[in-house]
Amino acid sequence: MELDKVIKNIGKNYKDIEKDAQHKIDLKTKPLGSLGILEAIVVKMSMIQNNLNPVIKNKALFVFAGDHGIASEGVSAFPAEVTPQMVFNFLNGGAAINVLCRHNDIDIKIIDMGVNYDFEKNNKLIDKKVKKGTKNFIKYQAMTRDEAVKSIQNGIDVFNEIHIKKRIDIIGLGDMGIGNTTSSSAIISCITGVDPEKCTGRGTGIDDLRFQNKVNLIKKAIFIHKPRKDDAIDILQKIGGFEIAGIAGAILAASYNKVPVVIDGIISTAGAIIAYLLNPNVSDYIFAGHKSIEIGQKAALEFMNLEPIIDLKMRLGEGTGASLAIGIIDASCRIMREMASFEEAGVSNKE
Amino acid sequence: MELDKVIKNIGKNYKDIEKDAQHKIDLKTKPLGSLGILEAIVVKMSMIQNNLNPVIKNKALFVFAGDHGIASEGVSAFPAEVTPQMVFNFLNGGAAINVLCRHNDIDIKIIDMGVNYDFEKNNKLIDKKVKKGTKNFIKYQAMTRDEAVKSIQNGIDVFNEIHIKKRIDIIGLGDMGIGNTTSSSAIISCITGVDPEKCTGRGTGIDDLRFQNKVNLIKKAIFIHKPRKDDAIDILQKIGGFEIAGIAGAILAASYNKVPVVIDGIISTAGAIIAYLLNPNVSDYIFAGHKSIEIGQKAALEFMNLEPIIDLKMRLGEGTGASLAIGIIDASCRIMREMASFEEAGVSNKE
Repeated sequence: MELDKVIKNIGKNYKDIEKDAQHKIDLKTKPLGSLGILEAIVVKMSMIQNNLNPVIKNKALFVFAGDHGIASEGVSAFPAEVTPQMVFNFLNGGAAINVLCRHNDIDIKIIDMGVNYDFEKNNKLIDKKVKKGTKNFIKYQAMTRDEAVKSIQNGIDVFNEIHIKKRIDIIGLGDMGIGNTTSSSAIISCITGVDPEKCTGRGTGIDDLRFQNKVNLIKKAIFIHKPRKDDAIDILQKIGGFEIAGIAGAILAASYNKVPVVIDGIISTAGAIIAYLLNPNVSDYIFAGHKSIEIGQKAALEFMNLEPIIDLKMRLGEGTGASLAIGIIDASCRIMREMASFEEAGVSNKE
Repeated sequence: MELDKVIKNIGKNYKDIEKDAQHKIDLKTKPLGSLGILEAIVVKMSMIQNNLNPVIKNKALFVFAGDHGIASEGVSAFPAEVTPQMVFNFLNGGAAINVLCRHNDIDIKIIDMGVNYDFEKNNKLIDKKVKKGTKNFIKYQAMTRDEAVKSIQNGIDVFNEIHIKKRIDIIGLGDMGIGNTTSSSAIISCITGVDPEKCTGRGTGIDDLRFQNKVNLIKKAIFIHKPRKDDAIDILQKIGGFEIAGIAGAILAASYNKVPVVIDGIISTAGAIIAYLLNPNVSDYIFAGHKSIEIGQKAALEFMNLEPIIDLKMRLGEGTGASLAIGIIDASCRIMREMASFEEAGVSNKE
């Protein structure tokens, strides 16, 4: 399905059911509100599924990978060849996200959006490569406008291709790409208007010198390119990344299909804010999986009025925070379906 | 095994393995420290099990139930008969903790430590009743010294009886008892020296008037009874609860057996601080499952130098926070066992 059509046809979630969902959780055998964030989760899940007994059967997680020209400026603690090396690690099941997906019974897919490496055909790796990495956005635009559109379209396509074969009930979105926190912070700064200093973190763990360089590069890139803050495609073109665009596309497609989306750290949140610019209704389908150590994530979540579910001081990416949050969301839905009401259990309600 | 012998023989966990465990997690394919709290969890699990590949097979959760004389002072939003009603709810599988234990494959046991109700024989309910509820501690001592000792002993016994049949690899501890946040806040205030105002919350959800009454009752009880702040038995006797003592006993027995313990909200944390007074080595085996909305929990956790794992704004008790944390701890162990190192995966380490 074409990008334009998807964007135009993302509706709100089912607002009508909100009161009934809240009422149902309120009558469960527990003090009012005592399940905290789990209660907000089940109400939102009910509104997405238009169902007072929300169910999650098939859990999926997509890891979008891409390389970044900006990596040559020394913005990461790791060399750029780590992107393809980590893709192999994903394919061999050895990365953190593989372990967490196995643990939570989540079907993981790896998507090459723009890794600077010629992979051999591998049925575990989905080839949606637009180009072998973005250009260094301190010197050039990261990509062409056509490439930006194509990247989002590829994210839409990969979601739809898998969803049509086996319905996805919830999807987590992760990333891999050396240099991609720099692009993500730049995108978030540009859209939210928050200063680069206040939405840039240390990524894979850089020292003070590299951190200052990273902030300066982001400032300079925004100054040079002047991306239009309300034009998602323009932003992607000038300072974006292929995997970030792919994530945005998957969010658009999932929202169109009324499938809940769990975003992860700063990169997948940057993808989300791109999707949000294209149609703010996407936030009706998004759960912010976890609070990242990367501070830029906060600005983006606030912009979309989303609150993170878990806070385990993580900053790994790949979808690791999202995968753990999917476990919590699944448990919350089960609470809604299986927990007894005061009446059912014969328990006296509040005096 | 007798209480005295258990207390005397709780050793430290295996400190020698700490460096190797940290080294092992550091060499996994991820930026250093990027798995946040999960990394601290696996190091502690390695130290408890003396194993660089910590494994959790059998997960258990005990819900200790007991009634409180202080409930007649209107400290709860719910009437006292809710304690036995909720026990029936647990036995029927309809409470939040039942759902979450099913979700995380945790074997749940309900233990009657002192519910004010004559239950018929039921093989799902473990009878360790000391007495049908404590006395109202604003008028009397909550229990006798012998009853306090017996309650802890019963907690030890129930752990050992189940552990001997089928080895428990991790145990979560929860509670049920109308009025028990009052007793817990009093215990924590007494031991930590933090003012009752600063360690009392709204329990099941009381209004301002009842809240002020609750704080005043705690102050008055401490003033009247003057429990000795370094004497756990004296504290239990004067202002404690049977289920809190049972939780303390289970913690002592688990620690003696080098089994990791996951505590829950303020009540099970009050049980933990009682166990900690008896032998501070128990904190080597305790994970603080979640951060409760009940503020007294914070003072107790700080006293024991423990940090909560998850923060989902919950305040339900029963072990609900612990059960979700067990899922995270299990996932962390799997990370340690299954995730590839840089060398194994052929990924370049930090430049």
